[in-house]
Amino acid sequence: MLEVLVLGNSAATPAYQRNPSAQLLYTDFGLLLIDCGEGTQMQLKRYKVKLLKIKAIFITHLHGDHYLGIFGLLSTLSLLGRKSPLYLYAPAELAEIIRLQHKVSQTILTYPLLFEATNPDQPTQIFENDAMTIHTVPLRHRIACTGFLFREKPKKHKIHIELFEEKPTTPQILQLKNGHDVLDEDGQVMYAVDKYTTQPPHLSYAYISDTIYDETLVGQLNSIDVLYHETTFLQEDHSKAQETFHTTAQQAAQLAKTAKVGSLLMGHYSSRYQDLNPLLQEAQAVFPKSQLSEQGKRYRIGDAQEIVEKAGENSP
Amino acid sequence: MLEVLVLGNSAATPAYQRNPSAQLLYTDFGLLLIDCGEGTQMQLKRYKVKLLKIKAIFITHLHGDHYLGIFGLLSTLSLLGRKSPLYLYAPAELAEIIRLQHKVSQTILTYPLLFEATNPDQPTQIFENDAMTIHTVPLRHRIACTGFLFREKPKKHKIHIELFEEKPTTPQILQLKNGHDVLDEDGQVMYAVDKYTTQPPHLSYAYISDTIYDETLVGQLNSIDVLYHETTFLQEDHSKAQETFHTTAQQAAQLAKTAKVGSLLMGHYSSRYQDLNPLLQEAQAVFPKSQLSEQGKRYRIGDAQEIVEKAGENSP
Repeated sequence: MLEVLVLGNSAATPAYQRNPSAQLLYTDFGLLLIDCGEGTQMQLKRYKVKLLKIKAIFITHLHGDHYLGIFGLLSTLSLLGRKSPLYLYAPAELAEIIRLQHKVSQTILTYPLLFEATNPDQPTQIFENDAMTIHTVPLRHRIACTGFLFREKPKKHKIHIELFEEKPTTPQILQLKNGHDVLDEDGQVMYAVDKYTTQPPHLSYAYISDTIYDETLVGQLNSIDVLYHETTFLQEDHSKAQETFHTTAQQAAQLAKTAKVGSLLMGHYSSRYQDLNPLLQEAQAVFPKSQLSEQGKRYRIGDAQEIVEKAGENSP
Repeated sequence: MLEVLVLGNSAATPAYQRNPSAQLLYTDFGLLLIDCGEGTQMQLKRYKVKLLKIKAIFITHLHGDHYLGIFGLLSTLSLLGRKSPLYLYAPAELAEIIRLQHKVSQTILTYPLLFEATNPDQPTQIFENDAMTIHTVPLRHRIACTGFLFREKPKKHKIHIELFEEKPTTPQILQLKNGHDVLDEDGQVMYAVDKYTTQPPHLSYAYISDTIYDETLVGQLNSIDVLYHETTFLQEDHSKAQETFHTTAQQAAQLAKTAKVGSLLMGHYSSRYQDLNPLLQEAQAVFPKSQLSEQGKRYRIGDAQEIVEKAGENSP
């Protein structure tokens, strides 16, 4: 399971009720928060997310619109009496800022905050369990910045028990679940895995913000299911994008196309645009499977064909 | 002119759409922001406040719910291209936190930020101009904390020109405006100031949050027009108030009564109370001129008789 709830999609400063960057990723591992702009804890409450279920927080970089909400969220989790560890992956200096603020406010969290500094210079696997891996994606921004790549591991095959004429044995079931044909004593195929099982897709999602247009990302992003990529500017404001180390909608779409991703989810919109449709049109002209991320909507990371808006239990 | 727009009134953590502490004070000097909890810049935008008109910010203490919104607001003012100086009165350590965050994000503000550290140990006049004075009010909280007392200076008398039989001279007008009778050559009263003029009231407002119940505040708060005082808890949760250095509604009302203030404006409500009416009833039982501060409402600091909700141009 991989779904993403958009908590904020504004660049630099909030505008038109668009909050600064934050997304909540629903995974088999649990809830993961990606970026945490000011007001994220209010957004989480607004969309009825159970705060204590957040397992880890991932911060791309230390521009305010990507991290200023973390202090209030950490404090609220403490007020809620959290006991379980919270993992925080972020640029090293965030630990220093948190330490200073907690010293000044005499705050002692009720839970362990397990901080791991991200390395902005090379892609690094920062997490792995049975269900998924998470890698950093070094980005080229004005300050040290990394995106994040979330990959589900290949899943156990699902067995269609109704197709069997006689009940398979436990070893046979395990064999099939692991994706192998079951052979008889003569080495002939008894149950072909393709016939008796299907394998659920294992999905991948990348969060790429903030960065100047960078084609070298294609290596890491190749064929992922959904790419969230910042589309701060229109191509007509290309020089502004260049100057501030951001990307245009057209450029993000070009990257999505070159990397052959399933879909492009757009966001981190400049406050200069009230109407976002020109951004969408610009991206779709290059890569039709482009879509605007909308605040408060939850998207299923699908079968690389589409992103389906979900009216889930946590929708507004 | 003294009016206050309530931007947030929640204690510790946002709850029931109540944002953390922040108020905007409309004065003859300009717009003053008191406390700046997370999300304050969004609240200011929501209520259509012109951000660049804010002259100064006053931070009571460095618990997150009173200051975490300042970083985003400072950044947004810079993105708006502010040039005029911004005054910031706050505990000394806030300068250190801002410096660290700006170093890490490589932020250089477009305007001078004039920081003045508050002294938590004794009442201090921190501002004076022709129109008003501002004093700190040292409070007893878990960490260094000061309230703020805003006092308009006595105002020029308004002359009722229609009452004169013959036109007064310019020196006579000045004499009257300054509140003095005009005497004739024999030293007899020619125009009595009481008869020919009225003096607009000069108003006073105190912002008291956060503090344990402290009767010694009566000295500084005596007879002010409107007292905003935290009412974090009900009296039945008195021990919780004591333990966390907060005040109950009953206690705040007792202070308002003892200090003979015009009205009590309540706020900083604990997230344990969804319904605030019990807090109001408790306060009114002791001091009838108690009123709940409501987020998004703008109150006129009146003639010490009442607080009138104003549907002003900046109301939601």
